[in-house]
Amino acid sequence: MMLNTKANLRGVLLALATLMLAALSPGAAHAEDPLPSWNEGAAKAAIISFVERVTTEGSADFVPVPERIAVFDNDGCLWPENPLPFQLAFAFDEVKRLMASKPELKDDPMVQALLAGDIAKLLEGKHHDGLLHIIALTHAGMTTDEFDKRVEDWLATARHPRFDRPYDQLTYQPMQEVLRYLRANGFKTFIVSGGGADFLRVWTERVYGIPPEQVVGSTGRVTYELRETGPVLVKTLDHLFVDDKAGKPAGIHQFIGRRPIAVFGNSDGDKQMLEYGTINNPRPSLGVIVRHTDAEREYQYDVNPKSSGTLVEALKDAPQRGWTVVSMKDDWKVVFSAP
Amino acid sequence: MMLNTKANLRGVLLALATLMLAALSPGAAHAEDPLPSWNEGAAKAAIISFVERVTTEGSADFVPVPERIAVFDNDGCLWPENPLPFQLAFAFDEVKRLMASKPELKDDPMVQALLAGDIAKLLEGKHHDGLLHIIALTHAGMTTDEFDKRVEDWLATARHPRFDRPYDQLTYQPMQEVLRYLRANGFKTFIVSGGGADFLRVWTERVYGIPPEQVVGSTGRVTYELRETGPVLVKTLDHLFVDDKAGKPAGIHQFIGRRPIAVFGNSDGDKQMLEYGTINNPRPSLGVIVRHTDAEREYQYDVNPKSSGTLVEALKDAPQRGWTVVSMKDDWKVVFSAP
Repeated sequence: MMLNTKANLRGVLLALATLMLAALSPGAAHAEDPLPSWNEGAAKAAIISFVERVTTEGSADFVPVPERIAVFDNDGCLWPENPLPFQLAFAFDEVKRLMASKPELKDDPMVQALLAGDIAKLLEGKHHDGLLHIIALTHAGMTTDEFDKRVEDWLATARHPRFDRPYDQLTYQPMQEVLRYLRANGFKTFIVSGGGADFLRVWTERVYGIPPEQVVGSTGRVTYELRETGPVLVKTLDHLFVDDKAGKPAGIHQFIGRRPIAVFGNSDGDKQMLEYGTINNPRPSLGVIVRHTDAEREYQYDVNPKSSGTLVEALKDAPQRGWTVVSMKDDWKVVFSAP
Repeated sequence: MMLNTKANLRGVLLALATLMLAALSPGAAHAEDPLPSWNEGAAKAAIISFVERVTTEGSADFVPVPERIAVFDNDGCLWPENPLPFQLAFAFDEVKRLMASKPELKDDPMVQALLAGDIAKLLEGKHHDGLLHIIALTHAGMTTDEFDKRVEDWLATARHPRFDRPYDQLTYQPMQEVLRYLRANGFKTFIVSGGGADFLRVWTERVYGIPPEQVVGSTGRVTYELRETGPVLVKTLDHLFVDDKAGKPAGIHQFIGRRPIAVFGNSDGDKQMLEYGTINNPRPSLGVIVRHTDAEREYQYDVNPKSSGTLVEALKDAPQRGWTVVSMKDDWKVVFSAP
């Protein structure tokens, strides 16, 4: 009897406390704007209406929390990719740094091309052999811990040539808001980038709140060694997996194992992942393309087939696929997060 | 003024509600046994004391929630691997099923070896070519959706030859309790298995509460196609990644991107992952080996170098590494979860 009364009292108090918390939550007090850096318009409305649809319990469009998977391209979608994708800027700075201890690098024709700014030469050939060679010099043959340290050191010292800020202080504020908004609504947010997973994981948790295990990127195999100092993993470029174009849905399958219901990209490299998330998905889905239309505050390079981040095919498909196209110039009140 | 008063009242009520919830949580009411299927002993004590150490705020051993990564081998650690690893039973049953529509398979020498029960022949050669051939027949050349359906159909119909239960109803109750206990304490639980990631992901969420994105396993590349019916991924065995032995720390790095602090295994295939989690880890860590010592309720095959799940080297290393060795016979009150 005593126990029952106690249990009842506990139940009542628990229900009361839960009700109090619900009534006091920010959403209940007044509907705050979840995307304050977005101008009112079709793009903002499409994102908010999608989130409301899939989170309304009892609705036919309701999606259970475990299936709320959102994937984001990184370069050009969460931060810029000009004048070079930032990881290439890292690789180029690393080559210059390495030359101090390896002077023989100055005789390397691809290093010479890099120093001369001859990017076209690095990109020659079907497999961009020159670029791969630079990547091999800067991204392989060291342990993962040593590589992490190099990326951290670079982020701490390098600055973007135009904006004169550390690279990791150049993320798009409107997209940071989308990440937070989705997570507040039960989504798991993943990066699905052509960039190297190891490069990204050093800083994505700090910068985007995205933990390493939610980063899908390009990878080479690592080899395990138990050294005197403990276990290490040595980076190689063997079995290189390039997480771009048709590699993106493949990467999503291999690393996440479910179809995403929300896909954010900005270039033709994201076309297949947009298709994978949105065509004949049994769940409601959202596809979003961030279009670089803002020469003044960022860059204007959409539909330029020569730039990195080419957006031709995916933009052509957008209307028939129902993908939402965001214009940075028109849809975003601010571009960059405050430093 | 009005706003300030409102805000203050809200703050007070919020704090009150939070305190009420905390006081009413089950942990505060009385300390329940988190591992009821474990006998009191060194193994149970080691697991509980580790969890208490890393979750005590203010302690030098405290580990922040994002770093509470626990990894579990599957075969022989969460469910049995006898008389055959269950995925092999699936592959063998699939070959028999496929023969109905592909009678030419009866002329295949490796299919003949399989039907004759000549497993030794399948395992011949450095790369176990016969076995790989059977895997190719049953695990490649179909879409991931088709493969998922085959695994589901098999789980719905096949029964374990000794225990006469569906294979997915043969999980170890004491390990299910460890999974739940760790998750209740802020851990993310991952499977890190030599088995195929695609095979595992069909059922791990339902059976272990482990979502697909927390399953690391062996993989072949998938290729993306946009068909009339929508996007598909076709399974191949290209760039086969075998998530076993030294592949396990490599797989952990590639898929999770952080060192685990708790590692559960049962065979020499888990030795490198145990090392990776526990040797010179800057965080406190726990290594656990489940030893198959129970011929009556399950199987007794530890230190038998001929069985699957050989445990010789890892067991030898356990004392110097500080790994906890669990005896199924002595440490577990029950073996299998109730159906």
